[in-house]
Amino acid sequence: MTRYPFPALKDLPEDIHARVLAVQEKAGFVPNVFLALARRPAEWRAFFAYHDALMLVDEGSNPTGSLSKGEREMIVTATSAANKCLYCVVAHGAILRIYEKKPLLADQVAVNYRKADITPRQRAMLDFAMKVCLQSDQIDDADIDALQAHGFDDEDAWDIAAITAFFGLSNRMASFSGMQPNPEFYLMGRLPKPAKTS
Amino acid sequence: MTRYPFPALKDLPEDIHARVLAVQEKAGFVPNVFLALARRPAEWRAFFAYHDALMLVDEGSNPTGSLSKGEREMIVTATSAANKCLYCVVAHGAILRIYEKKPLLADQVAVNYRKADITPRQRAMLDFAMKVCLQSDQIDDADIDALQAHGFDDEDAWDIAAITAFFGLSNRMASFSGMQPNPEFYLMGRLPKPAKTS
Amino acid sequence: MTRYPFPALKDLPEDIHARVLAVQEKAGFVPNVFLALARRPAEWRAFFAYHDALMLVDEGSNPTGSLSKGEREMIVTATSAANKCLYCVVAHGAILRIYEKKPLLADQVAVNYRKADITPRQRAMLDFAMKVCLQSDQIDDADIDALQAHGFDDEDAWDIAAITAFFGLSNRMASFSGMQPNPEFYLMGRLPKPAKTS
Amino acid sequence: MTRYPFPALKDLPEDIHARVLAVQEKAGFVPNVFLALARRPAEWRAFFAYHDALMLVDEGSNPTGSLSKGEREMIVTATSAANKCLYCVVAHGAILRIYEKKPLLADQVAVNYRKADITPRQRAMLDFAMKVCLQSDQIDDADIDALQAHGFDDEDAWDIAAITAFFGLSNRMASFSGMQPNPEFYLMGRLPKPAKTS
Amino acid sequence: MTRYPFPALKDLPEDIHARVLAVQEKAGFVPNVFLALARRPAEWRAFFAYHDALMLVDEGSNPTGSLSKGEREMIVTATSAANKCLYCVVAHGAILRIYEKKPLLADQVAVNYRKADITPRQRAMLDFAMKVCLQSDQIDDADIDALQAHGFDDEDAWDIAAITAFFGLSNRMASFSGMQPNPEFYLMGRLPKPAKTS
Amino acid sequence: MTRYPFPALKDLPEDIHARVLAVQEKAGFVPNVFLALARRPAEWRAFFAYHDALMLVDEGSNPTGSLSKGEREMIVTATSAANKCLYCVVAHGAILRIYEKKPLLADQVAVNYRKADITPRQRAMLDFAMKVCLQSDQIDDADIDALQAHGFDDEDAWDIAAITAFFGLSNRMASFSGMQPNPEFYLMGRLPKPAKTS
Repeated sequence: MTRYPFPALKDLPEDIHARVLAVQEKAGFVPNVFLALARRPAEWRAFFAYHDALMLVDEGSNPTGSLSKGEREMIVTATSAANKCLYCVVAHGAILRIYEKKPLLADQVAVNYRKADITPRQRAMLDFAMKVCLQSDQIDDADIDALQAHGFDDEDAWDIAAITAFFGLSNRMASFSGMQPNPEFYLMGRLPKPAKTS
Repeated sequence: MTRYPFPALKDLPEDIHARVLAVQEKAGFVPNVFLALARRPAEWRAFFAYHDALMLVDEGSNPTGSLSKGEREMIVTATSAANKCLYCVVAHGAILRIYEKKPLLADQVAVNYRKADITPRQRAMLDFAMKVCLQSDQIDDADIDALQAHGFDDEDAWDIAAITAFFGLSNRMASFSGMQPNPEFYLMGRLPKPAKTS
Repeated sequence: MTRYPFPALKDLPEDIHARVLAVQEKAGFVPNVFLALARRPAEWRAFFAYHDALMLVDEGSNPTGSLSKGEREMIVTATSAANKCLYCVVAHGAILRIYEKKPLLADQVAVNYRKADITPRQRAMLDFAMKVCLQSDQIDDADIDALQAHGFDDEDAWDIAAITAFFGLSNRMASFSGMQPNPEFYLMGRLPKPAKTS
Repeated sequence: MTRYPFPALKDLPEDIHARVLAVQEKAGFVPNVFLALARRPAEWRAFFAYHDALMLVDEGSNPTGSLSKGEREMIVTATSAANKCLYCVVAHGAILRIYEKKPLLADQVAVNYRKADITPRQRAMLDFAMKVCLQSDQIDDADIDALQAHGFDDEDAWDIAAITAFFGLSNRMASFSGMQPNPEFYLMGRLPKPAKTS
Repeated sequence: MTRYPFPALKDLPEDIHARVLAVQEKAGFVPNVFLALARRPAEWRAFFAYHDALMLVDEGSNPTGSLSKGEREMIVTATSAANKCLYCVVAHGAILRIYEKKPLLADQVAVNYRKADITPRQRAMLDFAMKVCLQSDQIDDADIDALQAHGFDDEDAWDIAAITAFFGLSNRMASFSGMQPNPEFYLMGRLPKPAKTS
Repeated sequence: MTRYPFPALKDLPEDIHARVLAVQEKAGFVPNVFLALARRPAEWRAFFAYHDALMLVDEGSNPTGSLSKGEREMIVTATSAANKCLYCVVAHGAILRIYEKKPLLADQVAVNYRKADITPRQRAMLDFAMKVCLQSDQIDDADIDALQAHGFDDEDAWDIAAITAFFGLSNRMASFSGMQPNPEFYLMGRLPKPAKTS
């Protein structure tokens, strides 16, 4: 779909332009979501502000929470797969592989998280996330209690729910607008890092 | 659920405090969503920035778009009902009644939008919104073409999709956290305005 | 839809005519279901005979049963919402508000009964009703046992099931034939009764 | 389930008793539905009045309608199978075989009506009935127009919808209460009638 | 559908021809599945080799397993009904009646196995089979443990799963290709065997 | 799950042993499905005989059919993803990448084939396969006609249906028994082949 072409880099507002350059510097390419949403700067800013509040472990809303960066990406990968969002499964699956240093994990979580090589705590986390994703009207206290049996507190529950909810938004925007994952994402984190040579 | 109590007004960051006072001034009460999310200021700010970009007709992302304020609320009401979100159906149903000046419309849209007293154009708008809400993986060009037959352009399609996606986030947060609509919403817009007396 | 116009009052059989006048006398208007079904008198008579056996607490089939009039309307409102029947949700939601003297209750029950301000006993009643409505093939003894833990006996279980089943019929007829709720229903029971003046 | 035992024949009200004897005289046994519902005489009377209005071709609500007795039973068999109601599929499947004089038809209609040996007109009839059964909120004018292409008028559409709606009630009551089909039904209509000898 | 006509008997490869004659000898007719698949001999051979390994109790893969021949057919009948496969429900329902010598059982299992006259052990067997049929991604150790409470060991679990999986294949081929059950199947096992005369 | 351990290589029947060695020779490792099913040799033989008849283009049942090897693997990958089968998505996704020489294709097809970089013909092929996978009871002539508009004949339709049906069996066995993909599959076909050096 080419209904929603990316704006030219040079036409981006300064703050967006700066972030785009920063992410390019860090990742080596510009993930398409940064460009696809930039055609609407106010939405772009809200989107990434929300993203950062939820996904940046140390600087986000719950800096002392117990969800690791990898666990946050697990939530994104599993729920985006439930929503069949190509962009988010491929892009966040890549980040999941990198954070967890497990080249096989993202495919497992995306295809069937019940068969993935994760801890019981992570399984409970994903069970909760999937219920927020697919049956949020049925969430009740018992669901949060089940999380607490695995050491998650109420702020962690909020994090899991909010990450799921936010990427539900992201999934719908990506699928609707035909956003394609950058080719780079498909291979990221699948190969062992080459040994450093001195 | 009282797991997530509202912060005290006096503890709110200044910008949030100001907006809360402004909305109270305008509405006569503070809609709970303003307080429920305020326990996490960064998420609060992102949430309302996103909201304003999509829902403020003149100042939002698409100021020349063809969706009226009432039509935006129709989308929120219909899709929130599909997600069974009590807070959003009641609160945005109220706003819908006020904007459209139709006391019966919100209940119709919430229970079964196919039976609501709306135009064919609005029906097409809600058909599209419901597909983004429930089957976003299956949206394709034909769905957007169907909108264009009713005078919606690609930017309008983006608005419908983005409003649906954003309130899908809102629905999940409200249902998960047990957010209750303020009692005031239930009756708003149901009574004819009293004639002004000079 | 105007495929199935209402018969003229003067053309109604005498018994139907009498009931229509009686309900108009009591309610101040004739709920559309009384006219919409009257085009087929034999079906009308069976419908209202069934209705009265289930919904009239003192004179119905189970006069010593424990379901209050309000609880019966809760069942109708919740299951009609599951069936997305505009007529029944609006009309019986109105009656629910009046019987329970709770202006907010009907909207809560219609949008998401799990979030409604009801007792645990009423929640169990609605859980059972929803299973009869949506998965009647899976009802078994354990479901009825769960009711008994809340003080419902086997006759109460029959009442809940039969009310759900009967309004499932009503929902389908109303949705199929495009029956619209009378405008009066939308506001009924939402306002505090004015204080009586002597 | 023996929660709801049948009343003794001698304890039945006179009108119910008479009907039970009449059906026994005609069928050679008393179909369980006549006894299972008789514990609540007012509901029994409404149920069979409704049944007769819809299912008795010559004396029912629409005596000049185009649905044959066999076609009415096809609707019951197909929609009861969708609701997984053992009593109604077996009992009405038997009656269907007899009316249509096709020993194989009921099993075809119950398992997958799309594969049954029926006419295109009957296929359209069952498509409509299944939509009333499973998605009544989505019925619109186009569905009734599709019927008219096969020679059904608006009264026939009402008949199809009402039969489906009524047996949806019946299915729920039978499944909830554990009503079992009489053994006689299983074999009825499966054997060719023996040739009459003078 | 006549897209996929049966090959002529005389054109069948020798091994297939021999099996067809043998089954005709035994059953008195050739079940259509033997001819419908014979147009592709390699698939035919694999299909029946798989079938025999799973369904022949003494000679199959698990000769000391605890599933009786009748129980195997129960699994086929219940899961084929879930897949709405006309051929398999009618053909295997017939075999089920014969093996179990219960003329009513197949219809019960096909319409709603929860209401069938089976043992708790058989109910557990069918619950497991239905989960393999409809939600195989969610099977976990707890499901197999539940079987063991009824005396099934891990090899029995494999048998139940494999029979379900194999007939899921069969169901899809039969429905896709429009395979019709032979008329003989509909009546088989419904009549008491005539007493033998010397 | 370790309920179903692999048999030791040395204990395999000779024919199975030979195939295992051959596949190891070719692939460099033994895909787990060859060992997981080998505990039941008769089922193993039927499984791979069926597999070969459907998946070996030149030697299979339909040697002049129009489905390429890559297209066959596309069908497997898409339908196995619908069934959430980890083993088959990962293993056959790998083979798909290799046959099609497109490192990104398998992830696209698995997450959302509607967004994959495939031809309209391949899209029609997968639409048909998904209907056989998820709604086989609703397949009719119109579905096969839709295939023919893209140049598929009736034998191709059979191939698509049979591949889907066979891997539905495979998916259920793999998910039920906890079969894990070999680690090698995850990376296969993702890297450009190194240039050959002489």
